[in-house]
Amino acid sequence: MAVCGIDLGGTKCLGVVLDGEQVVAEHRVPTPRTAGDLVAALVDVVDVLRAGTSVEAVGVGAPGLVDRAGVLRAAPNLAAGDGLAVGRELEDRLGVPVVVDNDATCAAWGETRLGAARGRSHVVMVTLGTGIGGGIVAGGRIERGANGFGGEIGHMVVDPRGPLCPCGRRGCWERFASGSGLGMLAREAAHAGTAARVVELAGGDPEDVRGEHVSAAAAEGDGEALDVLGGFAWWVAVGLANLGNIVDPEAFVIGGGLVGAGEALLAPVRRAFAGMLEGASRRPPVAILAAALGERCGAVGAACMAADGLTALGS
Amino acid sequence: MAVCGIDLGGTKCLGVVLDGEQVVAEHRVPTPRTAGDLVAALVDVVDVLRAGTSVEAVGVGAPGLVDRAGVLRAAPNLAAGDGLAVGRELEDRLGVPVVVDNDATCAAWGETRLGAARGRSHVVMVTLGTGIGGGIVAGGRIERGANGFGGEIGHMVVDPRGPLCPCGRRGCWERFASGSGLGMLAREAAHAGTAARVVELAGGDPEDVRGEHVSAAAAEGDGEALDVLGGFAWWVAVGLANLGNIVDPEAFVIGGGLVGAGEALLAPVRRAFAGMLEGASRRPPVAILAAALGERCGAVGAACMAADGLTALGS
Repeated sequence: MAVCGIDLGGTKCLGVVLDGEQVVAEHRVPTPRTAGDLVAALVDVVDVLRAGTSVEAVGVGAPGLVDRAGVLRAAPNLAAGDGLAVGRELEDRLGVPVVVDNDATCAAWGETRLGAARGRSHVVMVTLGTGIGGGIVAGGRIERGANGFGGEIGHMVVDPRGPLCPCGRRGCWERFASGSGLGMLAREAAHAGTAARVVELAGGDPEDVRGEHVSAAAAEGDGEALDVLGGFAWWVAVGLANLGNIVDPEAFVIGGGLVGAGEALLAPVRRAFAGMLEGASRRPPVAILAAALGERCGAVGAACMAADGLTALGS
Repeated sequence: MAVCGIDLGGTKCLGVVLDGEQVVAEHRVPTPRTAGDLVAALVDVVDVLRAGTSVEAVGVGAPGLVDRAGVLRAAPNLAAGDGLAVGRELEDRLGVPVVVDNDATCAAWGETRLGAARGRSHVVMVTLGTGIGGGIVAGGRIERGANGFGGEIGHMVVDPRGPLCPCGRRGCWERFASGSGLGMLAREAAHAGTAARVVELAGGDPEDVRGEHVSAAAAEGDGEALDVLGGFAWWVAVGLANLGNIVDPEAFVIGGGLVGAGEALLAPVRRAFAGMLEGASRRPPVAILAAALGERCGAVGAACMAADGLTALGS
């Protein structure tokens, strides 16, 4: 049974065909700027992918709040999709069942079914990119919540006096523990004179420092950059511990662009996290794993959801 | 089918018999200080309760981390229970199936099945007492997490520079939004000279001010006390919004001693909460309800869990 999964991002749409557990085809296009073009682009991606094989269902991962009917209720990073009934529009045009869910929720399902958390039942996925996305799997099931909006973990407030978030509140976790947050922490270090190599890589102006300059300097083994990454890792761990206390997962899977830093990030996150959970010494350790499916994890997870839908239909 | 539920608290054990949906008997004893006495007391409570009727199963709600095998893995407020295999000990002595779960998780289940959230599938219970307890129901099921430790919402850090918590960390939600937190906020107001009636009720010394003095002054309509309660309500709402973003419940049920303040507390919590969720204007409103089962909610929920177990066994 072949199914198609698409990760609908702010800049590109990445589609895959999943046959059993294997990705057998992939296609990507830039994300258009209007709703009509967006639907047409998604249809094109599927048509290209199903030219070579029969696709029985389609899954789409989309950014923002996706309701249980497949409508994008709020999509700050995808203006063309705002309010769009993606599921219905695609089903009308494609003639196969379409499921739509939040992109990070799809990623959580992909990593649980076929990635780093394969075989586990209680998993929290955390995607560290420009912002933070999340998805929760509990008891082997995806936790969508009452409206399908569960897993908006990036807007958990961890410091009410913290920096203003585009969402309108202060001190959301993603102000500290995303790529934007790493940039902010790095600029603080740059202005304090404790990030010389990072500033050099940014071209000399502390205000031009971004997260990627920290990652690059850390990859060279620069001690100051590693210190910034350590401070950043502490903020990552603060949010993981909150989620651990609330949800009690057996594993966190960390994805998104920042996980490219690898163990330079994950090792200090694990150190900071140890002992943070309530009654930590009385609990089994919680695994903190790097995502295994890379940039495809959202598309693969969306495809898995599409396949689940077929199974539920008895197909 | 009659079942027994016991809420094992730090100071008292409250047992009920639930016949269908009705509480038909109740018995309470002080909580003993040693493990042996504790088990004996729980057996006695059941024996008294089942003297008049046949009890087919027993549920126990206990404070702290209760694992899936019914062992109290960490119980800071119940020294006699620390490490105790409550479930096995009671089954051996009672001769009926025994289930054990966290007390606030039991309360969540009680309020969902027979209380304020009856008929709802996605519910977060928040007990505001000396600390904060929590329980999560999603998709009509209790979310226990990988180890049974889910719902430790009071130790969600909302201000890493905040006051030290007995758990060893800083700025846990229960430092602000529990009875202890209300006392702290009230003493701050007292020292600032903006809580005259509250200080008077405490006997004149700002350092003697506790949460109950705020509640009492607020019940008289004292404006300064209502202001303190408003600031407290904001902290309650901060945590609810975090949980709302993560879990996406349709309703919160607020229980514990502080809910005795009624609408004087819940109205400002609802006002502060409105707009706090990510994409709030695009979502259906989330109900914030007072618990309906009062001090019995944990015992009733534990009894419901015991009944569920019988159903699952085909009894």
